[in-house]
Amino acid sequence: MSGATPKARVVIIGGGFGGLNAARALGKADVDVLLIDRTNHHLFQPLLYQVATTALAPSDITAPIRWILRDQKNVTTLLGTVEKIERRNRAIRVVGEPEPLHYDYLIVASGTRHSYFGNDHWERWAPGLKSVEDSRRIRKRFLLAFERAEWEEDEAARRALLTFVIVGGGPTGVELAGVLPEMCRMAFRPDFRRIDTAMVRVILLEGGPRILPAFPDKLSARACRDLEKLGVEVRVNTLVTDIDEQGVHVGEEFIPTQSVFWAAGNAASPLVRTLDVPLDKVGRALVEPDLSIPGDPRVFVIGDVAAVKQPDGRWVPGVAPAANQMGKHAAKNIRRHLAGEPSLPFEYFNKGDLATIGRHKAVASFFDGKLSFTGYLAWFLWLFVHIAYLVGFRNRISVLLQWAYNYIFFERGVRLITETEDASMSRHPATQGRTGEFHARGAAEGVPSW
Amino acid sequence: MSGATPKARVVIIGGGFGGLNAARALGKADVDVLLIDRTNHHLFQPLLYQVATTALAPSDITAPIRWILRDQKNVTTLLGTVEKIERRNRAIRVVGEPEPLHYDYLIVASGTRHSYFGNDHWERWAPGLKSVEDSRRIRKRFLLAFERAEWEEDEAARRALLTFVIVGGGPTGVELAGVLPEMCRMAFRPDFRRIDTAMVRVILLEGGPRILPAFPDKLSARACRDLEKLGVEVRVNTLVTDIDEQGVHVGEEFIPTQSVFWAAGNAASPLVRTLDVPLDKVGRALVEPDLSIPGDPRVFVIGDVAAVKQPDGRWVPGVAPAANQMGKHAAKNIRRHLAGEPSLPFEYFNKGDLATIGRHKAVASFFDGKLSFTGYLAWFLWLFVHIAYLVGFRNRISVLLQWAYNYIFFERGVRLITETEDASMSRHPATQGRTGEFHARGAAEGVPSW
Repeated sequence: MSGATPKARVVIIGGGFGGLNAARALGKADVDVLLIDRTNHHLFQPLLYQVATTALAPSDITAPIRWILRDQKNVTTLLGTVEKIERRNRAIRVVGEPEPLHYDYLIVASGTRHSYFGNDHWERWAPGLKSVEDSRRIRKRFLLAFERAEWEEDEAARRALLTFVIVGGGPTGVELAGVLPEMCRMAFRPDFRRIDTAMVRVILLEGGPRILPAFPDKLSARACRDLEKLGVEVRVNTLVTDIDEQGVHVGEEFIPTQSVFWAAGNAASPLVRTLDVPLDKVGRALVEPDLSIPGDPRVFVIGDVAAVKQPDGRWVPGVAPAANQMGKHAAKNIRRHLAGEPSLPFEYFNKGDLATIGRHKAVASFFDGKLSFTGYLAWFLWLFVHIAYLVGFRNRISVLLQWAYNYIFFERGVRLITETEDASMSRHPATQGRTGEFHARGAAEGVPSW
Repeated sequence: MSGATPKARVVIIGGGFGGLNAARALGKADVDVLLIDRTNHHLFQPLLYQVATTALAPSDITAPIRWILRDQKNVTTLLGTVEKIERRNRAIRVVGEPEPLHYDYLIVASGTRHSYFGNDHWERWAPGLKSVEDSRRIRKRFLLAFERAEWEEDEAARRALLTFVIVGGGPTGVELAGVLPEMCRMAFRPDFRRIDTAMVRVILLEGGPRILPAFPDKLSARACRDLEKLGVEVRVNTLVTDIDEQGVHVGEEFIPTQSVFWAAGNAASPLVRTLDVPLDKVGRALVEPDLSIPGDPRVFVIGDVAAVKQPDGRWVPGVAPAANQMGKHAAKNIRRHLAGEPSLPFEYFNKGDLATIGRHKAVASFFDGKLSFTGYLAWFLWLFVHIAYLVGFRNRISVLLQWAYNYIFFERGVRLITETEDASMSRHPATQGRTGEFHARGAAEGVPSW
C-alpha cells in the first residue's frame, strides 16, 4: 500500500475541473495525492446539454479519472462517496469504509447540484442537468414525449406532449432551448407518421430581466432575438410558481407540458457543511483570499463550492475556467506551505464568456464585454474552445466527428431510450408496460422518471 | 391517422433482425405496416459483448427503429410493449393502451431473453447479455470489481474481486472470455496503484464436451487453445450447481468471485405463449415449414422465437442471419397470400459461423465446416462481416474508429460507470454510499446490481 511513505498526503475530493487541475498541478510536488470521487469519470459539463439533446454520447464527454491521471505516479484515484470531513482528526469519512482517511492537506472540490429553491418536489417533474444520469434522463424525456405523441389521439394531450419548457435563462437553459427547434424540425420530422414534430413549442422562462445575465446587455438582446428567430418563446421576469404532472404554473397562467427542464439554480454539495465554516446562501464556503478556509491553512475549497470575492467586490463565477484556475492555485499554495512560504491570494482571470444558440449562432464576450461578437465567428470560437478543453484525444476526435455528422446530415446520432435499472431487470419485457405509459405512471406513483 | 386506409395491415412485433427485415421486405407491398417494439432502437446484438467490455458505446451498435425505416412510408413505428396476442379477434394488446390493435397479418419477432434453467434467482449474481441495459450492467460490474479491489485490504477478497467467471461456451461466452485478459493486462494496468490488473483470473465454464459446439471439432479445439494461450481457464463438461453472492458452486468445488456472467441459455419471450400453439422446451413456437403457425396462415413467427426444422432434420440456429432470412421469407409469404398464391417453405442458407478470440484471432467455418480457417484471416473476415451488417453509416464509421483506437493504443474508450436510476435521483451524493459498497450491499438486499 502506498500509505507507507512519510510524504505529506493531499486528499482531493472531486474529479471535476477543480480537483483534476489541482491533482495535475501537484504532479511534481513531493506529496502523495489521493483523489476521491463518487463517480469513476471526469465529466465535461459544458457539453452535457448535447448528450441530453441526443447530439453526443455520454462517453464522448467523459473519461475515467484514473486514466487521465495514470502517468502521474504520485496520485492514487479511488471511487467513493465522502460523507463527512472531520477536521479535528484531519480525516474524511467515506461511506462503507470503516476506517477514516487521513489527510495532511485537503482540497474540497465536490461541486454543485441543481437547486429548486425549497421546492425539491419539483425535481420529479423538472429534472436538472449535472450528471451523466441527468442527461440520460432528460434525453429519455425528450424522446419519449415524441413517442407518446405519436400514439396520442387527443389533440390537447398531443400539444402538451410537444411543448417543452426550460426554466432558467443562463447558458445551459439558452443552449438547451437553442438546440431543440432544429432538432425537431430537421432530425426527427421524417421519422414520424402521425405527428409533425415541427409543431413543437419551446418556451424559455427566466426569472430575471434578461437571459444570459453574465453577458453585456446587447449580447443578451442578441441571444434573445436569435432564439426567437428559431421559434423559441423567451419570457423574462417570469417566475415559476408551481410544477406538477400536468405542467408549469406561472402565476395565474398554466402551461400544459410533460417536459420541463430545470436550469435555474445551483446549490453546493452538502459535504461542504461538514467543514463547519461560514457558508453563503447557496451553501458555498466563504473562503479566504488564498482559497483556504478561515483558521485552517491546510484545507482548501475550490470550484463551484467556493465563494470567493474578487478585489473589485464581485464574486468569482461558477464556471469551468474559474475552477481550473482555483485548482492550480490551491496546489500552488500547498507547495508553498510545504516550503514554509506564505500563501498567495487567488486572482481570477476571466477568459471571457461564450454561449451558443442553435446552428452556427453564438455570443462571445471578453474583458467584461469591452470586446464582444456574435454569429459565425463566435460560433467557431465556441467550437474551438470546447474541443480544446475536452480531455483525451479520443473524445476530441469523436465529438468532432459527431458534430460534423449532425451538422452535415441534420441528424442526431444518439437517440437511445433505455429502461430504468429496475425495469430492465425484468426478464419479461411483456410485463413491463409500454415504455412511455409505464414511466408516466411510474412517475405518478413516485418513480421520478418516465 | 393512417388506419383510415382499406389496405391490409401487417403488424410486426419486434424491431430486431427478423422484424426489421420483414418490414423492409414489405416496402413495396400494398399494405400498411405497423412495427411495434418495447425499445426505440434496433440493437446489433452480435457486438453487445463489446459494450459490456468497454470497447464500444451503446450508441455505436444501436439505431432508432423509426429512423431506420423513415423513408419507407408504409411503415409506422410505435414504441410499446405487447402483453397479449388475441388471435380470435386478430388483435394485439399493448400495455397501457385501452384499445386493442387490429391486424390482418401478424409477424411475431419478439426475441429471447437468457434462461437460467429454472434458477432465476441466479440472475441477480450472474447477469446475462441481451439488452443495452444488460451490457451497461455487466460493464459496471467489470469496472466496479477493479475499483473495489483497489480499496480492498484483504488478499483473498481482492483475489475474488479479480476473478471473472463466464458461464456458457457459445460465441458470446467465448468472445467475452477472449476480450478480458488483454483488456486487464493492457488497458487497465497503468491506471491502478494498489492492484496489478494482470493478476485477473478468467474462467470459462461450459456444460457440454466442447466450446463453440456449433463449430467443427477442430475449430473448437483451436478456439480452446487460443483462449488458454490468453490465460483463460477453459473447463468443459462443467455444470454450475449454484451461484450466490460469494461465488460459483461447481459440484463440490467453490469458485469465489463477485463477477459471474451468464451466456449459457436462452428462452423465448413469454409473449409467444399467448399464441396458444405448441412450443418447444425453450418456449419457441413450433412453426410450419412456411413459418406460419399451425392452422393460421396469417400469423408468422420468426427469428429466435421460432423453432424451424430443416429438411435434414436439424433445427435452424438462433443466429442473426437466420432471423434476417426468416423476416424476408415471412414478408414474401404475406405478399403471396395477398396475391392468392400458395406460401413457400422456408429454406435456411447457412452463411457460415464466425467467432473472435481476443486480438486478431478468430475461427471461421463455412459449408458445415467443409471450409474453415483461423487466425488473422478469420479475424479480418469477422471485422468485415460485422461492420458490413451494422445498420447506419454513422455506426459503421464510429465502430471502425473505436476499434482502430482500441487496437492501436491498447485502450478502452468507454469505461463509464453510472449510478442506477434510483441512486442517481438523490441530489445528495454524500448520502449515497461508496458506489462499490453501495451496490454490493444493495445486491445483498435484493437490488440486482452493484
